[in-house]
Amino acid sequence: MKLPDAHENVPVEEMDSSLGLSPSFDGPSNIDSRELGISKDPLLFIQLNELLGWPQALEWRETGRWMLFEEKLEVGAGRWSAPHVPTLTLPSLQKLRSLLAKGLVLLDCPAQSLLELVEQVIQEESLSPELRGQLQALLLQRPQHHIQTRGTCWGSAHPKKASHDENIPLKEQGQNSLRQKLPPGAEAAAVLAGELGFLAQPVGAFVRLRDPVVLGPLTEVPIPSRFFCLLLGPPVPRRGYHEMGRAAAVLLSDPQFQWSVRRARNLHDLLAALDIFLEGVTVLPPGRWDSTARIPPPKCLPSQHKRLPSQMQEVEGLSRPRRARTEDRDSHEPHKPTPELQRTGRVSQRCSTFTWPLSLMPSLSGVCWEMPLRVPRDYSLDYLPFRLWVGIWVATFCLVLVATEASVLVRYFTRFTEEGFSALISLIFIYDALGKMLNLTRAYPILRPGSPAYGCFCQYPVPGGNESQWTRTKPKDKNDLLSMDLGLVNASLLSPPECTRQGGYPRGPGCHTVPDIAFFSLLLFLTSFLFAMALKHVRTSRFFPSVVRKVLSDFSSVLAILLGCSLDAFLGLATPKLLVPRDFKPTLPGRGWLVSPFGTNPWWLTVAATLPALLLSILIFMDQQITAVILNRKEYRLRKGAGFHLDLFCVAVLMLLTSVLGLPWYVSATVISLAHMDSLRRESRDCAPGEAPSFLGIREQRLTGLVVFILTGISIFLAPVLKFIPMPVLYGIFLYMGVTALSSIQFMKRVQLLLMPAKHQPDLLLLRHVPLSRVHLFTAIQLACLGLLWIIKSTPAAIIFPLMLLGLVGVRKALEWVFSPQELLWLDELMPEEERNIPEKGLEPEHPFSGSDSEDSELMYQPKVPEINISVN
Amino acid sequence: MKLPDAHENVPVEEMDSSLGLSPSFDGPSNIDSRELGISKDPLLFIQLNELLGWPQALEWRETGRWMLFEEKLEVGAGRWSAPHVPTLTLPSLQKLRSLLAKGLVLLDCPAQSLLELVEQVIQEESLSPELRGQLQALLLQRPQHHIQTRGTCWGSAHPKKASHDENIPLKEQGQNSLRQKLPPGAEAAAVLAGELGFLAQPVGAFVRLRDPVVLGPLTEVPIPSRFFCLLLGPPVPRRGYHEMGRAAAVLLSDPQFQWSVRRARNLHDLLAALDIFLEGVTVLPPGRWDSTARIPPPKCLPSQHKRLPSQMQEVEGLSRPRRARTEDRDSHEPHKPTPELQRTGRVSQRCSTFTWPLSLMPSLSGVCWEMPLRVPRDYSLDYLPFRLWVGIWVATFCLVLVATEASVLVRYFTRFTEEGFSALISLIFIYDALGKMLNLTRAYPILRPGSPAYGCFCQYPVPGGNESQWTRTKPKDKNDLLSMDLGLVNASLLSPPECTRQGGYPRGPGCHTVPDIAFFSLLLFLTSFLFAMALKHVRTSRFFPSVVRKVLSDFSSVLAILLGCSLDAFLGLATPKLLVPRDFKPTLPGRGWLVSPFGTNPWWLTVAATLPALLLSILIFMDQQITAVILNRKEYRLRKGAGFHLDLFCVAVLMLLTSVLGLPWYVSATVISLAHMDSLRRESRDCAPGEAPSFLGIREQRLTGLVVFILTGISIFLAPVLKFIPMPVLYGIFLYMGVTALSSIQFMKRVQLLLMPAKHQPDLLLLRHVPLSRVHLFTAIQLACLGLLWIIKSTPAAIIFPLMLLGLVGVRKALEWVFSPQELLWLDELMPEEERNIPEKGLEPEHPFSGSDSEDSELMYQPKVPEINISVN
Repeated sequence: MKLPDAHENVPVEEMDSSLGLSPSFDGPSNIDSRELGISKDPLLFIQLNELLGWPQALEWRETGRWMLFEEKLEVGAGRWSAPHVPTLTLPSLQKLRSLLAKGLVLLDCPAQSLLELVEQVIQEESLSPELRGQLQALLLQRPQHHIQTRGTCWGSAHPKKASHDENIPLKEQGQNSLRQKLPPGAEAAAVLAGELGFLAQPVGAFVRLRDPVVLGPLTEVPIPSRFFCLLLGPPVPRRGYHEMGRAAAVLLSDPQFQWSVRRARNLHDLLAALDIFLEGVTVLPPGRWDSTARIPPPKCLPSQHKRLPSQMQEVEGLSRPRRARTEDRDSHEPHKPTPELQRTGRVSQRCSTFTWPLSLMPSLSGVCWEMPLRVPRDYSLDYLPFRLWVGIWVATFCLVLVATEASVLVRYFTRFTEEGFSALISLIFIYDALGKMLNLTRAYPILRPGSPAYGCFCQYPVPGGNESQWTRTKPKDKNDLLSMDLGLVNASLLSPPECTRQGGYPRGPGCHTVPDIAFFSLLLFLTSFLFAMALKHVRTSRFFPSVVRKVLSDFSSVLAILLGCSLDAFLGLATPKLLVPRDFKPTLPGRGWLVSPFGTNPWWLTVAATLPALLLSILIFMDQQITAVILNRKEYRLRKGAGFHLDLFCVAVLMLLTSVLGLPWYVSATVISLAHMDSLRRESRDCAPGEAPSFLGIREQRLTGLVVFILTGISIFLAPVLKFIPMPVLYGIFLYMGVTALSSIQFMKRVQLLLMPAKHQPDLLLLRHVPLSRVHLFTAIQLACLGLLWIIKSTPAAIIFPLMLLGLVGVRKALEWVFSPQELLWLDELMPEEERNIPEKGLEPEHPFSGSDSEDSELMYQPKVPEINISVN
Repeated sequence: MKLPDAHENVPVEEMDSSLGLSPSFDGPSNIDSRELGISKDPLLFIQLNELLGWPQALEWRETGRWMLFEEKLEVGAGRWSAPHVPTLTLPSLQKLRSLLAKGLVLLDCPAQSLLELVEQVIQEESLSPELRGQLQALLLQRPQHHIQTRGTCWGSAHPKKASHDENIPLKEQGQNSLRQKLPPGAEAAAVLAGELGFLAQPVGAFVRLRDPVVLGPLTEVPIPSRFFCLLLGPPVPRRGYHEMGRAAAVLLSDPQFQWSVRRARNLHDLLAALDIFLEGVTVLPPGRWDSTARIPPPKCLPSQHKRLPSQMQEVEGLSRPRRARTEDRDSHEPHKPTPELQRTGRVSQRCSTFTWPLSLMPSLSGVCWEMPLRVPRDYSLDYLPFRLWVGIWVATFCLVLVATEASVLVRYFTRFTEEGFSALISLIFIYDALGKMLNLTRAYPILRPGSPAYGCFCQYPVPGGNESQWTRTKPKDKNDLLSMDLGLVNASLLSPPECTRQGGYPRGPGCHTVPDIAFFSLLLFLTSFLFAMALKHVRTSRFFPSVVRKVLSDFSSVLAILLGCSLDAFLGLATPKLLVPRDFKPTLPGRGWLVSPFGTNPWWLTVAATLPALLLSILIFMDQQITAVILNRKEYRLRKGAGFHLDLFCVAVLMLLTSVLGLPWYVSATVISLAHMDSLRRESRDCAPGEAPSFLGIREQRLTGLVVFILTGISIFLAPVLKFIPMPVLYGIFLYMGVTALSSIQFMKRVQLLLMPAKHQPDLLLLRHVPLSRVHLFTAIQLACLGLLWIIKSTPAAIIFPLMLLGLVGVRKALEWVFSPQELLWLDELMPEEERNIPEKGLEPEHPFSGSDSEDSELMYQPKVPEINISVN
């Protein structure tokens, strides 16, 4: 066997022309469009019409179709198979090649209809006149298509096969659901293959039409055809022509081959393109892979860059995506500020703060800023004026940070810092939810058989002055009631409120105990948590149409809350409910809307407020900027610029305003901002069968943000509705939010690796490049940092917590002594200095003679659909 | 490009010999072993040593290894990749072919050591003496292996690479975990490939050693090598020699190629084998599949039958497994009874009745036999004597069935009947668990704020005769206590037992109410259910070593019960517990061990008992035989014969015995029997990396059955332990059993299809062959039958329930008018008559000109690891 070298059949003078036609020499303008996996050429819909029924009843039937992937007609089931990666056999490709080489190739055929086309093809073939007539009649015969109409016909004995009706109007074909998926301008290619007993030798023809023509009923969808391929011959074993037809269709569906064949000038160009295809194929050995197994479509298509010569890639800056990743941050960082005017349309995380049960939602700032402010409370100082001064100083510091363009420091927030921060917020959500739930069971104790909370009766004052008997026992501890002998009192069985109404006194510990609440709360908590989790997973399940799945998973929290409320309302137990004040006024009685700047505090407190203000500023800066960094990540494809400094400026102004009015301060909105962004994702619709919807970008606008805040404002008038929401349900949702957010970060994936035997670990890219022990060490250091932060947060030392959070950046810097830059590149990302210090070469794996990197699947580098790290929905 | 035809280089007279060497002409004795995917030849371990570091520091390094699948050395991470299906490029295979064709082929080389081998190879190559010396030194250089020791080195900065030490003793190599996986007699093949700048032209050599020899440190494991392949040459782009080395290794790992190359007599045989390999490869197009993506190993390897010529398959009876499936039943059916003596070791489902909380477990018979016996209870007849007579009659009928070999009727129990029966049992489990749980909440009512169950106090008799005041109100309904005015009574707050002890009376509805029990029971119920479900899924998770996972999932029910008991004990609430009588005696007071045959009943009742007995016999026969059919399925590979009639005989005798003693009757043990069988599965261990453990069979013995029943017997002395088990925990486990059993049957998969849009449906074989609407119709009929059975079971008509169950067979028979035999073959299986009536040809799909069947993956027909339909663990 010889190497499949295109040049062996091609004269030397033509080799250049075939090279000149290869897409690698195409201008750079074409590269961008190919980056998306599709060339600028129109989309090609390929269909295989097979000649079946020889010798009894010949008929053409569409048995396969291709856009990106193969769909096969399941004859018995009368349906199209799921789209799958087409697999071919090598002999079929080679037979196709030899048939094409011997057969007829008509490029830029001027035929205007199927009849003209067939006539031209048959004319060129060397056949007897009789055979020509037979063949022409056969080729003009109407093929049978299986047209999938929307919706399945439940229970009907014979599914509607529109094509079984010979006279199906084209109009009906237009209603084909496939038609709606084809973009305007799409072209068709028809491959006709089959066994024909009266032929003495194979007939092969490949036609490229000069102008695409609708070839009557030849194709399933009435779009103009560009290519026509005929493969007929005497019967051969193993469905040879079927396989050849498939091979031709798969060839035509290859973007590289398509590109070449649209520009081919002669047979040699065509064969050269086929040989380039053969060089690129993936071969699976027969003993280890069943060739008939259907491979589901990959999540993203291989990029076509790989198939360009390497020098082209360098010219086009199509270097490794991994390199690009580290460069993203630079290009995205605000150290070259753009004019403020350009930022008018930016997505600001301040705008998306949908915080309806805002005051209840746990947050890092919420938990931590209490710490610096604990001092004045403890020393019975006037709280609000002190808080006002802290606010003034925080605003001042923030404005200084804005003026000095301190957001440049964001560059030092690597994934290590981001993930530490995210994990901490998630853990606070989880801890708070569980803690508050536990507190509920303390407030509503469980009645054990021996517990003293049993008795309750209604005591009446006895006319005969027997009341002193009760009074005597009254001062004693209520919990002692059981142990002491109450003696004889006059009593009755009435519920406590009824008793009071009738002039008696409800006595006994049982009167103040509400049974069943603790466990019912726990049930509500678990129900809302599990229900929200389950609904979230509906999105990726196989059930229901995608619209229903999307609605269910988008509204998982809301639906879970509704379910919890219904359960609660159904049983009617006195569970603790969400309490919302009815009046719109300051909660503290007797204070006005404005906070007095001094109150009863000594003057020096205004200066002393700088210390807590400094710590709070660090916290707010980090919270604000990390959120902004996450929101402005390259993979979200935001088109409007980032507004790091403008955001911080807004925060400063708002701090001042809320301090003066005594309102709650700035609340970290990382989780909610990301949820908002997630809800604004745009994905491509009506993609080819088997193609995963691709992320197109974020719907950048201001409407939703505004509406969210208007709704938040209106919610203060919703008190009559909100009071039906039991607290355990909300805690369940907080737990769900925390668990969801925690499980989405890479750090948690590495923590899971700790529990997995090496054999069962997933094939993560970082595991291919970093020794497992080093991965574990990195994870352990992250865990230790997190543990330390948590301990500090929980002790009186919490006042230095913001400093420690900033310390994460220092720890990350120190890790450079422990890990090599290569390892950090895979585990985290590089800090600005490192990137500058490391020579280009150093970024490659340390082994000097390993080019094995090139074997990593390019798919793993593909710019992914953005993973929202802290995602709620 | 020419077709890769082996014959083009091979003289005609040698073609026959190469054909003669192909495995298809091997005797039938070899077929069986190849059926398991392995030829009789020793297992081959192939390793690729790559020459790296040109030109600075040349060294050999093992970069890949193959047994069934490919493992690649991740250089950066210092670990072996997960096993995956190897993918090759076509050019590398073709370059390898041309290198082998031009290079040296030594077959049956007599070398006894690496030195001899290298000398012989170099001698034959046409090289200058200087080059020879350099090459020899290079080839004798010790290669570096990455040896994976058991356990990972946590946190160590540099993972232990045993091979980095140049003088690693062979002993340590023997401890290599891979060594333990290789079966005795395994042979090695070493492929040495790399770029060598000082070579002017490529050096290729393929050596088959006459006797396998341990080639020193060449291979990772010190096993004798059979093959040696050398591929060296001047540097080429794209790691050409690495890819060629991989191609050679993959070739050698192919069973077909291995078979041929072990028997090849010259170069032409070798090249012919390579061409046969090329003809069988699967080709994936470059534009739709990234060649570097790693494909995980398929669940089962493709059978090698496909690669044999078709006439061989017919000779060997290796026809389509689907055909075999319908034949299984015949060969397995008991209508040709074997002597009873041969059945001594059979797995009888009677023996595996591990029914520790037996009397509580819901069962079909348990639910249904109450029905025929309801009559005498309603008419206040003497129950036990009547029951004795029913038992006598049932035993008689069963014996008649045994005598007439009625088990032949089992052939009519198709999957339709089996699944209807299984689904019914599962639903009864689920319904009973939920129903009993609901009953619990009625027994322990929830205390709502306005409910009258609040008050409880301790009333003392007033010395002054005030007691009459209480007595007066006493006759009234207790529930009225709140509404009526009790007047003034003397009372105290004491817990009800304490009150009684002190001579008072606990009064009020609250005294009889135990709060919190309802919700706590619900929590226990849910906890045990969810925990058991989660533990069951641990088996397929990535966490923990496989031993831990197996233990956790095997003991999921037990662990869930333990968790429930601990929770209950921790809170110490008075939940309802499992009550086991302490004494070993008849429960009914005043009756002896034997039941009197007549009692007070009229004589004619002994005859009337035949009617319920007839119905009960049907029920028992079906229950018994369906269980036996499921247990004796072909896919369990039982080696001892089935004992349908012996089992029924035992049932008859036991019926008689239990009736005479008044003990509970025969209880359907389908679920438990299958769980027992599941626990006795044997799977292959220490399989090659990436190979799924294969099912070897059932450990057929009598010990476990015996021990289970001894333990069941002993459990009556375990009352002090069992009383700690709360009932809700058991109900949770029942729910778990029902849900697990229900979700494992194909019927439920089809029910799920009803909810899935066609686009998202899984690629089930039946969906490829039967129109969706027909599948839905079949499912709907099954659902209707099930609904009808359920309704009958729940109404007074339940007495005819057993008849209706038998009616399932009739419904299935009637379905032959609605569905075509082809459809029934896919949806169910054929009944005996149908199989006989349908011509051989008719079993193929109805479309006359479709051979598309051959495109179904053979994997889908493979005898699967048995799916235990009703599986508990």
